[in-house]
Amino acid sequence: MSTALAKAPSIVTQAGADMPAALDFLKPRSVAIIGASRDPSKRGNRAIQTLLDCGYAGTILPINPKETEILGLPCYPDLASAPGEIDLAMVCTPARVAPEVIALCGERDVHGALVLAGGFSEAGPAGAELEARTLAAARKGNVRLIGPNTNGMFDGHTGLNLTGWPSVYAGGLGVLSQSGNVALSLLAQSHQNGHAGFSTFVGVGNEGDIRFHEYLRFFGDDPNTKAVIVYAEGFKDGRAFLEAAREVARRKPVVLYKAGRTDQGEGAARSHSGSLAGNYVAASAALRQAGVIQVERSDEMFVVADLVSRTGGRPTRGVAVLSEGGGPISQAADALAERGLDLPPLAEATVAALQTITPNASQLSNPIDAGGGTDPHPRYMPACAREILADLAVDALLIVGYFGGYQVRYGASLREIENEAAHQLVALAREHGKPVVVQCHYAEFPTEAIAILREGGIVVVRSIEIAAAALAAAQRFHEVSTAPMDEASAPTPASAEAAQLAAAARTEGRSALLEPEAMQALAGAGVAIPPFALLRAPADAARLPAELLAGPVALKIVSRDILHKSDVGGVRLGISGAAAIEAESAALLAHIGATCPGADIAGVLVTPMAGKGVEVVIGVTEDPQFGRLLMFGLGGVFVEIMKDVVFRTLPVSRSDAREMLDQIRGRALLEGARGMAPVDREGLVELLLEVSALAMSAPDFVEIDLNPVIVNAEGCAVVDARILLAGDAG
Amino acid sequence: MSTALAKAPSIVTQAGADMPAALDFLKPRSVAIIGASRDPSKRGNRAIQTLLDCGYAGTILPINPKETEILGLPCYPDLASAPGEIDLAMVCTPARVAPEVIALCGERDVHGALVLAGGFSEAGPAGAELEARTLAAARKGNVRLIGPNTNGMFDGHTGLNLTGWPSVYAGGLGVLSQSGNVALSLLAQSHQNGHAGFSTFVGVGNEGDIRFHEYLRFFGDDPNTKAVIVYAEGFKDGRAFLEAAREVARRKPVVLYKAGRTDQGEGAARSHSGSLAGNYVAASAALRQAGVIQVERSDEMFVVADLVSRTGGRPTRGVAVLSEGGGPISQAADALAERGLDLPPLAEATVAALQTITPNASQLSNPIDAGGGTDPHPRYMPACAREILADLAVDALLIVGYFGGYQVRYGASLREIENEAAHQLVALAREHGKPVVVQCHYAEFPTEAIAILREGGIVVVRSIEIAAAALAAAQRFHEVSTAPMDEASAPTPASAEAAQLAAAARTEGRSALLEPEAMQALAGAGVAIPPFALLRAPADAARLPAELLAGPVALKIVSRDILHKSDVGGVRLGISGAAAIEAESAALLAHIGATCPGADIAGVLVTPMAGKGVEVVIGVTEDPQFGRLLMFGLGGVFVEIMKDVVFRTLPVSRSDAREMLDQIRGRALLEGARGMAPVDREGLVELLLEVSALAMSAPDFVEIDLNPVIVNAEGCAVVDARILLAGDAG
Repeated sequence: MSTALAKAPSIVTQAGADMPAALDFLKPRSVAIIGASRDPSKRGNRAIQTLLDCGYAGTILPINPKETEILGLPCYPDLASAPGEIDLAMVCTPARVAPEVIALCGERDVHGALVLAGGFSEAGPAGAELEARTLAAARKGNVRLIGPNTNGMFDGHTGLNLTGWPSVYAGGLGVLSQSGNVALSLLAQSHQNGHAGFSTFVGVGNEGDIRFHEYLRFFGDDPNTKAVIVYAEGFKDGRAFLEAAREVARRKPVVLYKAGRTDQGEGAARSHSGSLAGNYVAASAALRQAGVIQVERSDEMFVVADLVSRTGGRPTRGVAVLSEGGGPISQAADALAERGLDLPPLAEATVAALQTITPNASQLSNPIDAGGGTDPHPRYMPACAREILADLAVDALLIVGYFGGYQVRYGASLREIENEAAHQLVALAREHGKPVVVQCHYAEFPTEAIAILREGGIVVVRSIEIAAAALAAAQRFHEVSTAPMDEASAPTPASAEAAQLAAAARTEGRSALLEPEAMQALAGAGVAIPPFALLRAPADAARLPAELLAGPVALKIVSRDILHKSDVGGVRLGISGAAAIEAESAALLAHIGATCPGADIAGVLVTPMAGKGVEVVIGVTEDPQFGRLLMFGLGGVFVEIMKDVVFRTLPVSRSDAREMLDQIRGRALLEGARGMAPVDREGLVELLLEVSALAMSAPDFVEIDLNPVIVNAEGCAVVDARILLAGDAG
Repeated sequence: MSTALAKAPSIVTQAGADMPAALDFLKPRSVAIIGASRDPSKRGNRAIQTLLDCGYAGTILPINPKETEILGLPCYPDLASAPGEIDLAMVCTPARVAPEVIALCGERDVHGALVLAGGFSEAGPAGAELEARTLAAARKGNVRLIGPNTNGMFDGHTGLNLTGWPSVYAGGLGVLSQSGNVALSLLAQSHQNGHAGFSTFVGVGNEGDIRFHEYLRFFGDDPNTKAVIVYAEGFKDGRAFLEAAREVARRKPVVLYKAGRTDQGEGAARSHSGSLAGNYVAASAALRQAGVIQVERSDEMFVVADLVSRTGGRPTRGVAVLSEGGGPISQAADALAERGLDLPPLAEATVAALQTITPNASQLSNPIDAGGGTDPHPRYMPACAREILADLAVDALLIVGYFGGYQVRYGASLREIENEAAHQLVALAREHGKPVVVQCHYAEFPTEAIAILREGGIVVVRSIEIAAAALAAAQRFHEVSTAPMDEASAPTPASAEAAQLAAAARTEGRSALLEPEAMQALAGAGVAIPPFALLRAPADAARLPAELLAGPVALKIVSRDILHKSDVGGVRLGISGAAAIEAESAALLAHIGATCPGADIAGVLVTPMAGKGVEVVIGVTEDPQFGRLLMFGLGGVFVEIMKDVVFRTLPVSRSDAREMLDQIRGRALLEGARGMAPVDREGLVELLLEVSALAMSAPDFVEIDLNPVIVNAEGCAVVDARILLAGDAG
């Protein structure tokens, strides 16, 4: 692929804006329409018409051997005869000829090709083979592929509309979607809104070549894009997406709807785009960790992205609510508090100032009901807003109720006054630099005041709850963008010891480490493991280390053939002294010999009895999309009955580990509930980091399970450890 | 108050419709406007103008001693000189004269009076006193009061608009609101919708006289009302509301938004209407039990009520999703599943039929993506819907995506075809009697097709999630309306034994029963209590019943002065035989004598050690709004850390009790998790019913606490019981 484009200033980007390096052809100076047509019902005709209608500033090159002119443009028989450099080819031809068409693109040095047709990997094995051949042609010819099976793409700023959709407004929202219809839904909202539009949309289709993460980096570098909306059903390369998100989401809000939260949704998504929807809990944790702003309602995507694209990372935690009636402020207070935002008390000076503006107000504490007895006037709104925005406790203002719609509610007589109030509010929001959101019962009625507010950059919405969700998302972006950079995770060297343990186990045909080996691996990774010994014969008891002979110990059978020791009576607890250990070990071996005949017995593991404390579970599991994840939860009923566990992708940072402790529902137990002292929190964080490091240094250890670990004020004790090896389901 | 109105056919109700007995003046044949004015900025002028504009069919009687004519109507100097019967007086005069005005209403035999002014009990003690005097005048004169501090009321069918709000469409939604602005927000949605309107709205204001429950019964009996929307911040008489809801909600959907879910929302609500917002968890449980359909988003109220007003109680659990694109069906599947609805598989015959209609469809299983390759045509929608609605597994159909907006998306050329498709869908929905909901990306664009759908009774919404919430609410109404009537709770006779125990305790100046007394009270209510004995002196141990001497027992100190026995070392466990019991009792008494000097010791309670099982907690607590509630939860960490408890108002029915077991998050533990046998579920249900009955028969027992109860496969054992008496915080 030619890299000339990266150096030459593009004719279709804004003057002075730097071009992103990688996917330059997403802002093409020229587009070839392969399969151009004179038939207005054909995509190869509509695409040209749309480009003309949208005033696309680049060169349009219709390609069709049977035509010489289409819609007033010269038509070329093939790519070779079309003049000039070709940045992008839009392929409107049927799927079956895609490999040949892409090969021709390569010969002609076309930079990127957008393949509209379906019938590829989403349609079964034959389609997958066709997609593979198409991709091979692209690789050979140095052509990057958008799609196949995509709805196309558009650029709101240059008129490059390759979707054929009407009403594409230019604006700051980049859209990266696995569904054309979801993007169209956003378009309809932009159309209704009138003042929030789009930078670039790309339908990723089957992610045949370019995947989510590459597009995301493009948006990250695109100066027109102020926030990125992602609709994803599954990721072909989840790890790469997380890496890109971790980098982009700190600078630019990434608002993501992940389909497949439920089995039903997951099933629907899988059949839709042939992608792997994966487990939502794990996906959600991984995406959150990467700084993504997740939305779980389709009706929140547009407003959330619109607001976060405008707040510039400013905080919105402390929200003042202003209205002229009581009900909506209660609803707003509930909606904000449920989403983790605060309604800070106002300063006395603010209350006093509000009192002089609206002496009859029903309530001058936050939330503020400026109405009282009679209906107030729209001009009170900016007057009150001025005082509220000046209050240091207030990060953001949410106006709920009539404002914007007084002219609907009370008639045209109020129009000029309300419009002027809207202008004032716009000026105030700019002056104070604090986010202002207006929830208006009449947001669906296109009043002049609403248009003034939106034109001035104020988000106006119909729903109180969506307004609250948008403010919560803005606060989240503030936190993501201001979080201290995680300590650079030094590349983890492979652990020779772990590799040796894995190799030895494999030599013996085992798919798991024996428990003493697992303990050894953990100790090697810096985990403070209590003393332990493997008793190969009961008679060896007397030679156990003194610390194991001093107090009560646990005896556990060690066998490659016994995965669940307790279930077969393979554990004895609270045994003290060499004689008792010898006797109980012998009894244990005899019992196992009788109940599990033929089991290969390595011996009896002797460990000290754990102290009292809180049982927790730490594990490493493999997610099909995002790779290995660290799991943490409270043990016992919490994990078994309440499924109270949290996940993070590896490696976890110290702040991730701390967040994991905070996010379990039963966290009160760690903080010292039931009369116990708080547990050694930092010790637990350290243990999570050590397990993370062990997993990173031992790619062979696909599953690690410390269950339970006993945590108390003094520290953590790993009571049971299990490690499974790669290449085996265990 | 005259009852003539109840007998005479009203001129303003629909012919043949029966008038409800109680609040007849809510459909007045004549309205006096007290404080009528010629000043168009005054409510006393706007009200008359609105009545004229809305074509109110009754008699309007302006009252003002200074005027003879207002807006073309004769004005009377006082009520006495106004002609004819006066059903309703709208009081536009200031708050301070309200008692006198209401007294005059009484003298004139006015049936009901609507008091607009604020400044009553919501405004502090002086206002409360004014409200009390106003109410006294009303009682004396036999006038019922709406308000005070209300936004007024309207009737969509008769033009009785006493709110001054524009655009009141007639329809089936009754609105009962503590906030005028919340009602106005619903009005704006009706206006935008164009085809869903209102029967009657009443702003309850301060509930000075008429309270929520009386209005609710009015709506229950009003033939124009098909569903009731309630916005409540708190209830002045929560028990009466529950009783009314229990009766009405089975016949007519009651859709309720309760403000004050969070501390912030509760604070806002309390300041707003001076009502008691109360604890949301308890309120929510009580309302659910009464059959109310709760919504927790302001943006769902209108659509939910609109849909449930139309489904006639038909089930909507099994939903088929139809679209022409993949993304929205994934989002719909997630949204439906998260709200407890199913997406049943389609019958093979249905799939085959769909295949012939849309051979290129991407997915013909539910959810159905009828699109494929090219954009499909609106005419496929009714064709597919016909097959889907005929499928026996399908209760309801949710169409998501373009339908209704093809003419926006693809231009006017499709208008006629889409409009015809909309007509067909309306006919199909009627023919099959199955609810159909259309989610349309273009719902905010008033297309002809959308108007046809709505006019035909099909709910069209913008949001996938709100559509799903509405379908879930419809299913809930189906369940409420078809649930077997609870066994009529026989009036519970007061328990003489309970009264005696309470009286005896009070004689001794105690505010709680001693544990043996509590056990006795439970036994008296039919609870199977293990054998127990109060050992007054250790030496009596030998005379204990044989069953307590046979096995290990627990010893517990019994003292009016010791509430938390365990905290002071007042419990000894696992003691066997007379000698040991005597020795341990003596030691226990000595210990308590030393640690709690001066405590009045009644003796030592001897009970058998409980078997192994699941710890649960059963309690009776007092809610300030809804009275006494039965609480159930799992014990230990579940209640302490996870707050995993559920509530029901007393008395609970058998189905309530069963639901309580099903609704705790940790219910798996009752079903036999962790290798245990399932617990004796029916025994536990029985115990809940017995505790409910005990509380009903013993009004003195304001708090009952059985903590823990050990449940296993064999039954339930009450291990500890505590009963607090009325008149004391305990």
